[in-house]
Amino acid sequence: MSLDEIGSLTRRVLERHGLSALQAEPIARIVAAAEADACRSHGLYRLPGYVAALRSGRVRPDATPRLERVAPGIVRVDGDGGFAPAAAEAGRPALIAAARANGIAAMALTRCHHFSALWADIEPLTEAGLVAWAFVVGQSSVAPHGGTRRLMGTNPIAFGWPRPGSNPFVFDFATSAAARGEVELKRLAGEPLPDGWALGPDGAPTTDPAAALAGALLPFGGHKGSALSMMVELIAGPLIGEATSSRVAKMDIHDGGPPPGGELFIAIDPERLAPDDGWRSEAEGFFAEAGEQPDLRLPSARRHAARARTRREGVAVPASLVAEAEALLAGG
Amino acid sequence: MSLDEIGSLTRRVLERHGLSALQAEPIARIVAAAEADACRSHGLYRLPGYVAALRSGRVRPDATPRLERVAPGIVRVDGDGGFAPAAAEAGRPALIAAARANGIAAMALTRCHHFSALWADIEPLTEAGLVAWAFVVGQSSVAPHGGTRRLMGTNPIAFGWPRPGSNPFVFDFATSAAARGEVELKRLAGEPLPDGWALGPDGAPTTDPAAALAGALLPFGGHKGSALSMMVELIAGPLIGEATSSRVAKMDIHDGGPPPGGELFIAIDPERLAPDDGWRSEAEGFFAEAGEQPDLRLPSARRHAARARTRREGVAVPASLVAEAEALLAGG
Repeated sequence: MSLDEIGSLTRRVLERHGLSALQAEPIARIVAAAEADACRSHGLYRLPGYVAALRSGRVRPDATPRLERVAPGIVRVDGDGGFAPAAAEAGRPALIAAARANGIAAMALTRCHHFSALWADIEPLTEAGLVAWAFVVGQSSVAPHGGTRRLMGTNPIAFGWPRPGSNPFVFDFATSAAARGEVELKRLAGEPLPDGWALGPDGAPTTDPAAALAGALLPFGGHKGSALSMMVELIAGPLIGEATSSRVAKMDIHDGGPPPGGELFIAIDPERLAPDDGWRSEAEGFFAEAGEQPDLRLPSARRHAARARTRREGVAVPASLVAEAEALLAGG
Repeated sequence: MSLDEIGSLTRRVLERHGLSALQAEPIARIVAAAEADACRSHGLYRLPGYVAALRSGRVRPDATPRLERVAPGIVRVDGDGGFAPAAAEAGRPALIAAARANGIAAMALTRCHHFSALWADIEPLTEAGLVAWAFVVGQSSVAPHGGTRRLMGTNPIAFGWPRPGSNPFVFDFATSAAARGEVELKRLAGEPLPDGWALGPDGAPTTDPAAALAGALLPFGGHKGSALSMMVELIAGPLIGEATSSRVAKMDIHDGGPPPGGELFIAIDPERLAPDDGWRSEAEGFFAEAGEQPDLRLPSARRHAARARTRREGVAVPASLVAEAEALLAGG
């Protein structure tokens, strides 16, 4: 399929289930971008979840994001109960303008539903020449290092660094040791989990995927990853006026759709912060030195390579995903 | 010893070796604060390193930090070749004012020498009611995940969240799996390193401390910690007009003193970013829930407990450290 066909199919499925064009189009762009980058877990695979959230009434199909500039460096977007991509697109030009005017700016998305990959939120900012971060409170499922039960969400962190004339340096990862989806795949395959991924409901370490899903995931990287997960919980929850993951979990309606919440962005304009143009060549020197280590792969390198390939060749979408999308299109 | 006595001893040693009061006093405060928090690795133990940097001429003893407000949200402090604490103190009021006025602000310290703990840079900002980060490019010694040799510094990250009426939530850690000092201690004790700490000069994993010191440390947390270390390298190096750790290493004069470089701070005023006062109670709800897990220790809890204890009891400083300081005071 071409990327246009993937986007069009996505948009038609979402509109078939009542979502406004304002909400559906940013999602269609992100689903197509995920398929282009062979990031299948955020591509057409997500359509049933989007539709579930529309069917349950969890997400407002005609939500209209409202933008507010609450301080010179702060943009706030009230998502009006819709999906996050429309809220992010509504605020992005103001965030970019605020970062350029002040040198640094933040944007808080609130009252929306996040279900996509954070790199898709970062790359438009690196394309605008900004250094950027994004933080989201994920689904409650992670025990803190030294704890025995859930306290934090999967709490991803994304970062991007602009590289004019080249793909940006971008990373985007959950602060849990593994994603819930990876544990689910191990369960379906009947395989044990690696050590360090999870605790059972009794709070003891487990390699049994079913026990892990009933218990808690662990943070990546021991006490350091645990501290970062807590940081995301605070800055992408309370700081932007949203609830912590455990409070969100208590309100869950279990429709398979994305939880309510928000997202925090921070963006810096290097042209304002750096004393001169030397920042570009110094950073490129770092990347050149990294390139001298033959087995080293920079974050996102696989995604960017896939993008170059799918641009030439299109995307081979599994027939089952297309059939599922077409069933949703037929109202199924 | 009382904290005043520790501060006074530090100041006299540094002034004895030619450091101006403007430079020495902020260091004396940080050394005393580190001893108060039982954070001995950044206390009196560091005095010989400070003195070495003065003796070699690496650090300018009469440096006068210069403050510049280069954009509404950006404060830059030229450290004038002195130590970082004086530069940080020179810029801090402007950073706090910029964060309050704009909602978010950044501060770049440049042309200085960093040798202290980042939590000491964070806590004055949380005391001012701000959410804050600090990043420093550490000594070149870390191989990237998937690589075979040094590319990054130890690159610490610190974060603080204000908790009115209580100790702040603060963490401060190197993005390497272990500090060079920990590897050195293992070497002196004749003990092997845990798996995952280091590579030898041949690029293969090693548990031999001597091979690790000649080779490279590994990042904490696999590819995720490696990505964070690269982020720090970029934002606390090129972004603020400073060199990457490997370029700094090539210029090293091996006097045992702190490398030249800078520091990036980011500060957010929650009173401007959060939509109302609810951020405080939502965050305190998170900490209360964390407190229900009996074996969970929040980052910095041990440090803050030590502070409460030393405030009552003073600090028991090892006689060898006092003797060393007195030898430095005598000019030795």
